[in-house]
Amino acid sequence: MKFIVDRDILLSALSVVEKFVPSKSPITLLSGIRFIASPDYLSLSATDLDMGIEHKIPVVDTSDDSIKILETGSKVFPARIFSEIARKMPMGEVMFSCSDGRVEINAGNFSMTLPYFESEDFPEITRDELSPAMNFSQKLFKNMIKQTIFARAEESTSRPQLTGILVECRQNTLNMVALDGFRIAWRKENLEKDSSVVNADFSLIIPGRTLMEVSRIFGDGEESFTLYAGKNRVEFRTESTVISSRLLEGNFIDYEQVTRVEPKTIVDIDVDSIFSAIDRGLTLAREGSKNNLIRFRISDGLVEVSAETEMGSLCDRMQCQKEGDDLLIAFNARFLMDALRSIETPDVHLTFSGESGPCIMRPKGAQNHVNFVLPVKIRGEDY
Amino acid sequence: MKFIVDRDILLSALSVVEKFVPSKSPITLLSGIRFIASPDYLSLSATDLDMGIEHKIPVVDTSDDSIKILETGSKVFPARIFSEIARKMPMGEVMFSCSDGRVEINAGNFSMTLPYFESEDFPEITRDELSPAMNFSQKLFKNMIKQTIFARAEESTSRPQLTGILVECRQNTLNMVALDGFRIAWRKENLEKDSSVVNADFSLIIPGRTLMEVSRIFGDGEESFTLYAGKNRVEFRTESTVISSRLLEGNFIDYEQVTRVEPKTIVDIDVDSIFSAIDRGLTLAREGSKNNLIRFRISDGLVEVSAETEMGSLCDRMQCQKEGDDLLIAFNARFLMDALRSIETPDVHLTFSGESGPCIMRPKGAQNHVNFVLPVKIRGEDY
Repeated sequence: MKFIVDRDILLSALSVVEKFVPSKSPITLLSGIRFIASPDYLSLSATDLDMGIEHKIPVVDTSDDSIKILETGSKVFPARIFSEIARKMPMGEVMFSCSDGRVEINAGNFSMTLPYFESEDFPEITRDELSPAMNFSQKLFKNMIKQTIFARAEESTSRPQLTGILVECRQNTLNMVALDGFRIAWRKENLEKDSSVVNADFSLIIPGRTLMEVSRIFGDGEESFTLYAGKNRVEFRTESTVISSRLLEGNFIDYEQVTRVEPKTIVDIDVDSIFSAIDRGLTLAREGSKNNLIRFRISDGLVEVSAETEMGSLCDRMQCQKEGDDLLIAFNARFLMDALRSIETPDVHLTFSGESGPCIMRPKGAQNHVNFVLPVKIRGEDY
Repeated sequence: MKFIVDRDILLSALSVVEKFVPSKSPITLLSGIRFIASPDYLSLSATDLDMGIEHKIPVVDTSDDSIKILETGSKVFPARIFSEIARKMPMGEVMFSCSDGRVEINAGNFSMTLPYFESEDFPEITRDELSPAMNFSQKLFKNMIKQTIFARAEESTSRPQLTGILVECRQNTLNMVALDGFRIAWRKENLEKDSSVVNADFSLIIPGRTLMEVSRIFGDGEESFTLYAGKNRVEFRTESTVISSRLLEGNFIDYEQVTRVEPKTIVDIDVDSIFSAIDRGLTLAREGSKNNLIRFRISDGLVEVSAETEMGSLCDRMQCQKEGDDLLIAFNARFLMDALRSIETPDVHLTFSGESGPCIMRPKGAQNHVNFVLPVKIRGEDY
């Protein structure tokens, strides 16, 4: 195997794949990045078996200097040391030549040799048994991940499926849902009806870690991707990249049912103001209970956000539009802040159903984005 | 005590003093910041006894809204929680009123109460028994710190004085020296002869931690400061701030003597090129020995920088101007990089005195800045 590639093109490909290299693995081969030099492309792959990636740099034009395949082949290079040094190599062309178990790398006056592994046993990233499930915008999908992923459960949960995100297609609506038993974040978008690859409804629980990487790699422009799904695995395919992941097994609660509550108090309020007030409250609240307890006192036209611990007390007053009953209710400040951070409109629409019911949060004027946060029970001595 | 201060002025004063609050102290009072409201200024102080600061915000003009003293007094506020919340307070005026052991803080629609401590037992920051030792430029002093502090010993050393920096005045020359047994960084500057406060030569070992804070707080303009010194303590006094610190006891080796070596090989080389080469070398070298061993092969007009470990090998070749003997010598890459980072000229002047002698590094054309780095002995099997 022998090829020449421009350093910056190599670095940008490395930055796409290197996060998929496991930091520790009992299988030495997986600590490497597989390079395939073929006449049409140079590809870089990495995987920890749960999740993997293959990224291709196309050979667009043989007169182009950015990449030249001189001898096809496939080898696995040690990832960490290679990435670290590659980042420090001089600008311009980098030449790779493999022979006798060593790859020689030359860039300007710099030369290096590293050992390589043969690639026969490197796991394949893509699977043939998967079928296309939908075409969708990369940018919009990223946005849906950002607006839900914070609500998934931590890795220590007893219900591992909740560390993932439910990606569900029902009657041409794509739903993305994360929940941890205290809160739910739910985003939905219409799928284009003429999308040629939407075959049927589907329901997949995709690991949060996979979606973090998807959201890092997906573009912010007009590009789309195709989701391929099988029984246990899923793939995100774009023009240059395939990200592959196992699926999580288990069930989610019926999020449509749970978030359908009867409103008793309705509040419209400026997102920045209430976020700042809760943020100040959290600074004090986290000195007290592990629940980061802050209180809302809602009356006509006024919300008071307060916190009280042994260290002291604080209070913020802000105007709002309110309908329905007055209310005194307490929340974990962190859950409210996470949810508010995902709201992209200037105002937020909050509905409450009594002091033991959830807070349902929607961007004002939008129906495709719902946050559900359970309150914290206030004990008598807190007053 | 009662005063009004603009939030941004308060925040900038807090950022100056808060690093001096010890994160843990058996003396509860020291976990606070002492505020003094006097007719002429508001002052903030913090100390861990080893090192302390007093920073004054002057009341320039009573018609100015940025600060108003309504009732003089002195109290100690809990530092950490106060700083955290202050940073999140709404912009504009913040009013402080103290009574019955609680300070009430109001800013716009936000209000907070915190407990305070009485300030009688708070240690005084400045000491009367110190005498002025020199006037000097803040900017130049900062620069001298930056160019030496990296070479001081780590806190775990058996010679605690080496965790400090020697600040020494000899015959109107200010010397700053840091060393750890493997390397020396030495900067000198002439003191202005007409400086009214220079009384006599002095030699002080100032803790590195103190000089880090001094360098953080000192300005980049034309401002000067006065150094006050006594037997065990030193103070840096500027118009608004006093930084006070204990001194370290002990001796430094004779740095003038040690850095005066007979040159056998002299090399002038571009700083950026050799820095990049050593940086690449380090990436591989740190996989091997804990010495981060890299080798220099110096011949006429050419320096080869190479590293070799079980992971692989690398080599950089670069042009240089060389006089004297050819040389093969090895160094800890990190020590050379630290020293090269402190060179502010495009080229560096290196002198060597054989394979077991030090590398003496000077900015090309400058005599007021010397780095001394001992080589690493190369064992036979390294070849």
